[in-house]
Amino acid sequence: VGARAIAHGLAKPSGLVTCLPELSPLPLIGFDQLVFGGWDVSSAGLLHRARDMATDDRALGAGLVAAVEDDLRAIDLRIRPGFARGGGPATQSLASRAVRRRRETLEAAAQRLGDDLDRFREEQRLSNVVVVNLASTEPVIALGPEHASIDSFRRLIHNDRVTQVAPSTLYAYAALDRGYPYVNFTPSAGVSLPALQELGHKNQVPFYGKDGKTGETLMKTVLAPLFRYRNLEVLSWEGFNILGGGDGRVLADPNHKQSKLRSKSGVLQSALGYNPHTGVSIEYVPSLGNWKTAWDYVHFRGFLGTKMSVQFIWQGCDSILAAPLALDLIRLTEYAARINESGPMRHLACFFKDPMDVKIQSFTEQFSLLLDYVDTHARRVPR
Amino acid sequence: VGARAIAHGLAKPSGLVTCLPELSPLPLIGFDQLVFGGWDVSSAGLLHRARDMATDDRALGAGLVAAVEDDLRAIDLRIRPGFARGGGPATQSLASRAVRRRRETLEAAAQRLGDDLDRFREEQRLSNVVVVNLASTEPVIALGPEHASIDSFRRLIHNDRVTQVAPSTLYAYAALDRGYPYVNFTPSAGVSLPALQELGHKNQVPFYGKDGKTGETLMKTVLAPLFRYRNLEVLSWEGFNILGGGDGRVLADPNHKQSKLRSKSGVLQSALGYNPHTGVSIEYVPSLGNWKTAWDYVHFRGFLGTKMSVQFIWQGCDSILAAPLALDLIRLTEYAARINESGPMRHLACFFKDPMDVKIQSFTEQFSLLLDYVDTHARRVPR
Amino acid sequence: VGARAIAHGLAKPSGLVTCLPELSPLPLIGFDQLVFGGWDVSSAGLLHRARDMATDDRALGAGLVAAVEDDLRAIDLRIRPGFARGGGPATQSLASRAVRRRRETLEAAAQRLGDDLDRFREEQRLSNVVVVNLASTEPVIALGPEHASIDSFRRLIHNDRVTQVAPSTLYAYAALDRGYPYVNFTPSAGVSLPALQELGHKNQVPFYGKDGKTGETLMKTVLAPLFRYRNLEVLSWEGFNILGGGDGRVLADPNHKQSKLRSKSGVLQSALGYNPHTGVSIEYVPSLGNWKTAWDYVHFRGFLGTKMSVQFIWQGCDSILAAPLALDLIRLTEYAARINESGPMRHLACFFKDPMDVKIQSFTEQFSLLLDYVDTHARRVPR
Amino acid sequence: VGARAIAHGLAKPSGLVTCLPELSPLPLIGFDQLVFGGWDVSSAGLLHRARDMATDDRALGAGLVAAVEDDLRAIDLRIRPGFARGGGPATQSLASRAVRRRRETLEAAAQRLGDDLDRFREEQRLSNVVVVNLASTEPVIALGPEHASIDSFRRLIHNDRVTQVAPSTLYAYAALDRGYPYVNFTPSAGVSLPALQELGHKNQVPFYGKDGKTGETLMKTVLAPLFRYRNLEVLSWEGFNILGGGDGRVLADPNHKQSKLRSKSGVLQSALGYNPHTGVSIEYVPSLGNWKTAWDYVHFRGFLGTKMSVQFIWQGCDSILAAPLALDLIRLTEYAARINESGPMRHLACFFKDPMDVKIQSFTEQFSLLLDYVDTHARRVPR
Repeated sequence: VGARAIAHGLAKPSGLVTCLPELSPLPLIGFDQLVFGGWDVSSAGLLHRARDMATDDRALGAGLVAAVEDDLRAIDLRIRPGFARGGGPATQSLASRAVRRRRETLEAAAQRLGDDLDRFREEQRLSNVVVVNLASTEPVIALGPEHASIDSFRRLIHNDRVTQVAPSTLYAYAALDRGYPYVNFTPSAGVSLPALQELGHKNQVPFYGKDGKTGETLMKTVLAPLFRYRNLEVLSWEGFNILGGGDGRVLADPNHKQSKLRSKSGVLQSALGYNPHTGVSIEYVPSLGNWKTAWDYVHFRGFLGTKMSVQFIWQGCDSILAAPLALDLIRLTEYAARINESGPMRHLACFFKDPMDVKIQSFTEQFSLLLDYVDTHARRVPR
Repeated sequence: VGARAIAHGLAKPSGLVTCLPELSPLPLIGFDQLVFGGWDVSSAGLLHRARDMATDDRALGAGLVAAVEDDLRAIDLRIRPGFARGGGPATQSLASRAVRRRRETLEAAAQRLGDDLDRFREEQRLSNVVVVNLASTEPVIALGPEHASIDSFRRLIHNDRVTQVAPSTLYAYAALDRGYPYVNFTPSAGVSLPALQELGHKNQVPFYGKDGKTGETLMKTVLAPLFRYRNLEVLSWEGFNILGGGDGRVLADPNHKQSKLRSKSGVLQSALGYNPHTGVSIEYVPSLGNWKTAWDYVHFRGFLGTKMSVQFIWQGCDSILAAPLALDLIRLTEYAARINESGPMRHLACFFKDPMDVKIQSFTEQFSLLLDYVDTHARRVPR
Repeated sequence: VGARAIAHGLAKPSGLVTCLPELSPLPLIGFDQLVFGGWDVSSAGLLHRARDMATDDRALGAGLVAAVEDDLRAIDLRIRPGFARGGGPATQSLASRAVRRRRETLEAAAQRLGDDLDRFREEQRLSNVVVVNLASTEPVIALGPEHASIDSFRRLIHNDRVTQVAPSTLYAYAALDRGYPYVNFTPSAGVSLPALQELGHKNQVPFYGKDGKTGETLMKTVLAPLFRYRNLEVLSWEGFNILGGGDGRVLADPNHKQSKLRSKSGVLQSALGYNPHTGVSIEYVPSLGNWKTAWDYVHFRGFLGTKMSVQFIWQGCDSILAAPLALDLIRLTEYAARINESGPMRHLACFFKDPMDVKIQSFTEQFSLLLDYVDTHARRVPR
Repeated sequence: VGARAIAHGLAKPSGLVTCLPELSPLPLIGFDQLVFGGWDVSSAGLLHRARDMATDDRALGAGLVAAVEDDLRAIDLRIRPGFARGGGPATQSLASRAVRRRRETLEAAAQRLGDDLDRFREEQRLSNVVVVNLASTEPVIALGPEHASIDSFRRLIHNDRVTQVAPSTLYAYAALDRGYPYVNFTPSAGVSLPALQELGHKNQVPFYGKDGKTGETLMKTVLAPLFRYRNLEVLSWEGFNILGGGDGRVLADPNHKQSKLRSKSGVLQSALGYNPHTGVSIEYVPSLGNWKTAWDYVHFRGFLGTKMSVQFIWQGCDSILAAPLALDLIRLTEYAARINESGPMRHLACFFKDPMDVKIQSFTEQFSLLLDYVDTHARRVPR
């Protein structure tokens, strides 16, 4: 909705990092040049979901959805059945009957997904295709030596080891194998497997992840430096998240929740330099729909041992927070690919809860990495 | 209490910026080498106040106060009567009868305060004296051309123009005139007058201010970059502060409150690059004592115009937050003076709500100025 | 919108007290039998405002407004110009040019408003007309002996004493003088003048007020008994309200705000039995539109003097909270008039911040008065 | 500490329901006539704990503890070893080695506890002994037919069925068997077994429970009527509790937590008349000590389906909240026993989360039961 609304001049670029003046030196692709397609395990379709967001969640203007209705219908025609085997019980429950019934091997699926990408590129006459994982969070899979090299990972696919090849890793494989850049906006495994990074390097494509930083964790990485630089010891940092919607329903399943909690919990250790008592909980509250409320209680020790606290309450609409960042990542990844960069895009750390190959967790310091990238390229690249 | 407790090894350096590992390259003065004195318009004394903080506010351990009782008594003997003329109605009401009755001209007072400083230095055999303004907030004074040069400011003193020479400026004058470094931890005018900066430059002493950043405003300068760097438009930022204690009582007076609100309100414009709708209110709630609670509501616009919010609740003990910063400023100012630096100490911007000569309002970026200073001096100064 | 939506079967009776099972014994008028008319100083019209609430505030479904569009247009035709003289600066600024330019005496206005009521009753063939004041809050007027009897109040009207006859009192006069029941949902004076109560008694019509209890104050009267019945001393109760919309704009004016703060501040004394330190502030925050956020901090002393606190954050849409109560009051007042009751309707205390002739402030105890009324009438009145 | 401080005139009766003017008609026992004794599985002692509460939690004045030090020492001498078998892993971990090592059968323990009570009564020359369970929460035990009658329960004791006889039920048995009144302030089973109620009735002693209502649940039963009587549908009510201390440590164990969550979760159904989506979580946060913070988010649907919310943050000291209620219950139970009342004391419902034989959950309506009791007895009993 947003990309098409901006392309039509119907919406302002609020929430888009790539539209900040600081990023204007980069010749990023225009919103009107982007063509959307994808896979979905559900058969609901974008238009249906957009209307729900307008009517039930009051998170979008109903008029705006109506204005891009034709665009959404066109995109819905380009959305192909997703792959859900091994994606966990909650994902299965969201999947259409057709997707659930399909008995496709991992090898067949990898082939099909790759072919979908090639066909999409050809049919739409695209210079490149960027794959972004925006699917529901999968359960954690145990990593073993067979995830360490692309050769052994290919054997897992060949032998249809469905408990060792999560869907997110199969999509990532399909993209990277055909030479398409890949970004993982979710806490699922995706390109975090060494095997897939090897593949990305080999095929010289850019990739990155994982877990888009949109709300509570963003707040954490913004606030933590206050305690760090004022020498205030954080004793406890307890976070409680409540949300509804499809995302909430999936995360209500303990198997799926585990992945999310892992990527959320790592940030404090890095940002503070020690591990305070900490807890993060996520509860499914259907009435909230797409709106998430997070309450965080931070207990800290000040001068002479006196304990004090700060609490925050974050009330945001998850899709509205995530969508512009996904567009930012598409634009920045397309640019990196266009100028033949490859490997992990460390300058994108500020977008992620668990940024690949970057230890810095302070948000403003992560943002400096992006500014440095702009500086370097502003000088290098003719516009 | 804190400085003596640390000197005796009875307290850890929580809350002290100068005790962060990042600052260890600077050969700062030890806590056991600091000698305290000062002026007070009230006759209550440090020991009395410390006991109140332990008993009424439960902000200090009663045992800790008892352990430094002798030290506090010794300091109380070195505290001399303050100067309150022109300090506003609320300050007058805190002053002892002796201070209120004294009919001292500005010129006599300036002389007396300067002599006090010289005598303190001699009697205690000190290598230097750093003056820090920690007095109650004064009403705003209207600045005019007579505050623009030290010559005309001296005429104001000579002509006893009490409505144009606030006490904080007289203390600053006394310090700088005798060559002692001066730091203004309050929102009062202090060294912000061009006349006094001229004097500081002329006498080659370091100075800085104003208004120590301890709570709600600290949070603002930490959080604002989140909105700035995510391109989320802040629509409104409303802050409500409640506090008791002497500080609360003084700020309950509208004349005094004005100074505080001014230094609090400037930060968003600089940090965001535009002026959202904003309000800051301070209410006196006696039952809170030294504890301040601030509730801030930040309303912001995200992608496609959807409005979201974040609220925070800060619960801190004002003196406990301010005291270590005052000690940090004493140590860093003493160091600057020792190595013959002079003028505004811009590297101290991260300590202040309204930092002199520094436009940066993002807390982490201000902290970088301090780190840069450490880097430069670590290489230059033999330890 | 709501009354018509319910009449058409398009909405459920959420938020309507009169639709509780406890009230079913009373044979109240059906929503489809209500006919709406009124006066407005603005010329915007209901349809325009309803669309704004759907689009800007996302407080109503756009589809619902569209479904009752014809009904709203019909009502808009029955809305006549209001009377704004003496209504305070903020009300003037909301008024249409026609209303502002009209130079109508109080006597002429009283005549006109009364005639409007009679004509409305005749044209719509109504069995009765209930007048409810839902206009913006007026400034406080000083009450004097001339407000004590209906004769002297009539002289004020006759002599065109515009500073002593607030619009709300003129509307109340017009209604009661023609024998129509009157309810004051606002903090303006309305029927609180002894003179007008005398008129109501004389003409044997029911009346009541004032200031509908919808949000923060409702919470206060619900929470206060916790402290009262647990013997926990409330030390301070500080409330901060932020809201936008027309109501917010009017209350931003200190003259108008005063009326509101008065009716808000009285409740604690009655509910607790003593007066804690208390403050209520209301700030205009345009971005919030019709949504109001209230933060209340309650500081209380428990066993052995230990201080504790409870805070609440109320986020409600003012019109959505008020509208069903206004409909409840219309239905209950129509019923009272139908069975020939007159005078102050004390059983409606639970709807008001400052209920006439009722000292009870505990919400659940006030609700018992309504239940008692239902009990008494269920037995008396054949259905 | 509190009872002795009041007896010595060192503290005011804040937080004591029995000291409200409404209860003055009852001739309750004076604080100076109460003698304290008890059992403890830990060997720490009251004095030690009181000092901790003063120093670590700053929940008591250090001076107050010092003033009653002798009294606490005397009580500590009267505290005898508790019984912990079957009390769950967390209780075991708090127990002293002596208690853990003791291999006492249920029958021997019942005998010992009963003898302790008789000896206490004789040695202290008491007119009666009231037993109040204030021990850590036990895991849930599955109730079966053998808990239905006192005969079969006695067989469980005789056969040493430790998995079916929780310590709280053994203490209750010992008390009721010897004819001493019993009150259960915890969520453990206690007198809730039909077998034990049969015993209480048979021996004509008063008893009641369970789970003292001190914080979050108290707020729930105060707030729920707002939604009920305004016809606002509660969609979700989510509560998050964080606390430290011994109680927090025990509740961190999932076995123990279950009992607590059960008694907390029942109240909404009764108070609202339907079951909203609801969750209650309790997390152990050691740094909080005896202080508990609860955040509750209530999502409700208003007029025309518009969703709104209210949140509250409760910050209280658990022992300080519970202690006066325990004293109230002792005084009211002693009174009931003195005037030969027996069976469940329904008039005490307002003190409990899960009040025996009372369906009313609205706090103010529960309080009316107590007022009715006072009214009845004020007339009956000569003072």
